[in-house]
Amino acid sequence: MSKKLLHTPEGVRDIYGKEFERKLSVEEKLRGVIGSFGYEAVQTPTFEFFDVFSKEVGTTPSKELYKFFDKEGNTLVLRPDFTPSIARCAAKYFMEDQYPLRFCYVGNTFTNTSNLQGKLKEVTQMGAELINDDSVEADAELISMVIEALKSTGLEKFQVSIGQVEYFKGLCEEAGLDDETENELREYISGKNYFAAQELLSERNVKEPYREILLKVADIFGSMSSLSEAKKLVTNERSIHAIERLEQLQEVLKLYGVEQYVSFDLGMLSKYHYYTGIIFKAYTYGIGNALVKGGRYDNLLNQFGKNAPAVGFVIVIDDLLEALSRQKVDIPLSAEKQKILYTESDFSEKLAHVMELRRQGIAVELVRKGNGQNE
Amino acid sequence: MSKKLLHTPEGVRDIYGKEFERKLSVEEKLRGVIGSFGYEAVQTPTFEFFDVFSKEVGTTPSKELYKFFDKEGNTLVLRPDFTPSIARCAAKYFMEDQYPLRFCYVGNTFTNTSNLQGKLKEVTQMGAELINDDSVEADAELISMVIEALKSTGLEKFQVSIGQVEYFKGLCEEAGLDDETENELREYISGKNYFAAQELLSERNVKEPYREILLKVADIFGSMSSLSEAKKLVTNERSIHAIERLEQLQEVLKLYGVEQYVSFDLGMLSKYHYYTGIIFKAYTYGIGNALVKGGRYDNLLNQFGKNAPAVGFVIVIDDLLEALSRQKVDIPLSAEKQKILYTESDFSEKLAHVMELRRQGIAVELVRKGNGQNE
Repeated sequence: MSKKLLHTPEGVRDIYGKEFERKLSVEEKLRGVIGSFGYEAVQTPTFEFFDVFSKEVGTTPSKELYKFFDKEGNTLVLRPDFTPSIARCAAKYFMEDQYPLRFCYVGNTFTNTSNLQGKLKEVTQMGAELINDDSVEADAELISMVIEALKSTGLEKFQVSIGQVEYFKGLCEEAGLDDETENELREYISGKNYFAAQELLSERNVKEPYREILLKVADIFGSMSSLSEAKKLVTNERSIHAIERLEQLQEVLKLYGVEQYVSFDLGMLSKYHYYTGIIFKAYTYGIGNALVKGGRYDNLLNQFGKNAPAVGFVIVIDDLLEALSRQKVDIPLSAEKQKILYTESDFSEKLAHVMELRRQGIAVELVRKGNGQNE
Repeated sequence: MSKKLLHTPEGVRDIYGKEFERKLSVEEKLRGVIGSFGYEAVQTPTFEFFDVFSKEVGTTPSKELYKFFDKEGNTLVLRPDFTPSIARCAAKYFMEDQYPLRFCYVGNTFTNTSNLQGKLKEVTQMGAELINDDSVEADAELISMVIEALKSTGLEKFQVSIGQVEYFKGLCEEAGLDDETENELREYISGKNYFAAQELLSERNVKEPYREILLKVADIFGSMSSLSEAKKLVTNERSIHAIERLEQLQEVLKLYGVEQYVSFDLGMLSKYHYYTGIIFKAYTYGIGNALVKGGRYDNLLNQFGKNAPAVGFVIVIDDLLEALSRQKVDIPLSAEKQKILYTESDFSEKLAHVMELRRQGIAVELVRKGNGQNE
């Protein structure tokens, strides 16, 4: 027997028994909340043409895509992410008079990392996208939906951290940074590499007060009070508008009754050009990564030939389950199945009884006495 | 914009709107029936090592597997089928004292066919496996579960055709055929290529009455009466035992009250060495392929180092949906979502109302008046 026969490749796994029951139960709860907001489920192919997930559209580096070929010689890619596929569907099947569109999805995504990184290579993601609504109410809907969804699973201690990439962009404009410096700086700040950021600003001769302000950005997080502090630091319209938008968002989140789960972090800057407005992540105890990532990406549909703003999020189900397990949150499971034993002589009576129980909705396993553990 | 951006590769597709709702509804019904028989859901990785689906274990030719490499240089394969993965799980995680095992699964499978074949390359399959029960009651459980599952979706006109590969094997032994001739003949009979079968039997000088009997095998199908006819044709124990087993099966299926959905076909011979006892397929109007394929494969777990008989089936959900649609079977869907419009001035009132409706379990979309079709 080949040694590989019993093993799964590193980074992917089998899920069974109670663990899988918990996964299904959590997925059902999340789906219930997202469905109650009127989001319609869609299913896209597990693999697509390379172009759909290429650098202009996706957020996954090309070297982390699983690539292969079909018999016609096309390069195919296992989806690393759902958002480009959902944007493609929105652009392909729906006309402007059907806008706004609310989509949700659940399924597995794949990243071809090295074993040394110790990461899962196949994870289950659930998410939602709201297309063609650029309002602050739309931003608030997505964030409160995330919060209600997480609460529905029994998770209590979590925080949604919200940034706004426009604040930083406005500040860079005001400071007169060129694109290259802006991009480099963003990478350092989002990587929390303050030293490199400091060095860059000095190397490129960025003037005060901007040098100090830009470094401060990485430090601005916490409650609403820091938003007013951030506002005082800038004079440009773009950054001021970004803060005002967050202030409005905070007001709408209060109407949803979820403000206690929210904090702001203007140093949260995506590494990619993907996001155009708010950006948010949910964190909880027990896992280091963000459980949820989301934000506004008003230019994504452009890539598919449509002009429509969009906001969305994704929940990594595997990370959520890990957190629930570490926090010992009890996930209610359906009743244990019954087990009824039969012998050669009483099979027909037992079967009639079992069929009646099943009709009543009870899960029953009918097992021959003497088979396995029933000896 | 790249032309490929809006397209999905041929043979895979997007599913959305009512079509996807119908798919989810059908899956839920099938899962309900399979769950009521005490089958536990498991989830295996979308890709595995090549060995798990290689020729000795799987039923898919190597050239129809999607193959690719991980960063460690292993050959990975998108699963073409669930059965080998389920057998691997059973062998890996469960001890003999936990037998018998009842597993079910749902997920997508992949076959790398050429576009010219016009087949779906990604399909959703749901199935069940009963491991370590070699009884006729186990065979009957799987077949009646298939029938109840199909009925639960609203499908009425379908037929489960049952074969028994041992009948043919016994007959070949009795006729003194060598392995090569047996395999070739099996291919011709399962491909319904009578002419080639006839030519082969004459070329290999197969004696009468076997030449005639072997050709008759391909013709034996229909009701119970043909089983007794088939029994009269043979004198070997193996074939007689196979027929007796089918007669017993018919009796148990009567206890389940599903005998009217069943017919026999002793010419149903899998192309592969996979099956060892019964083999069955479900057919209905509107699609040419079998919706369901199943059977007994008592040697499969051997490949994974365990000695346990097994019987299982798989339902191709896409084919079932196609049949339901062509037969115009009505699939009950959940209530349409409500749509409530807000204006800038009444958002908070409308939101409060919507939140109350959602708490009551009603799906409500809250849309700004003037956005899209709500103008």
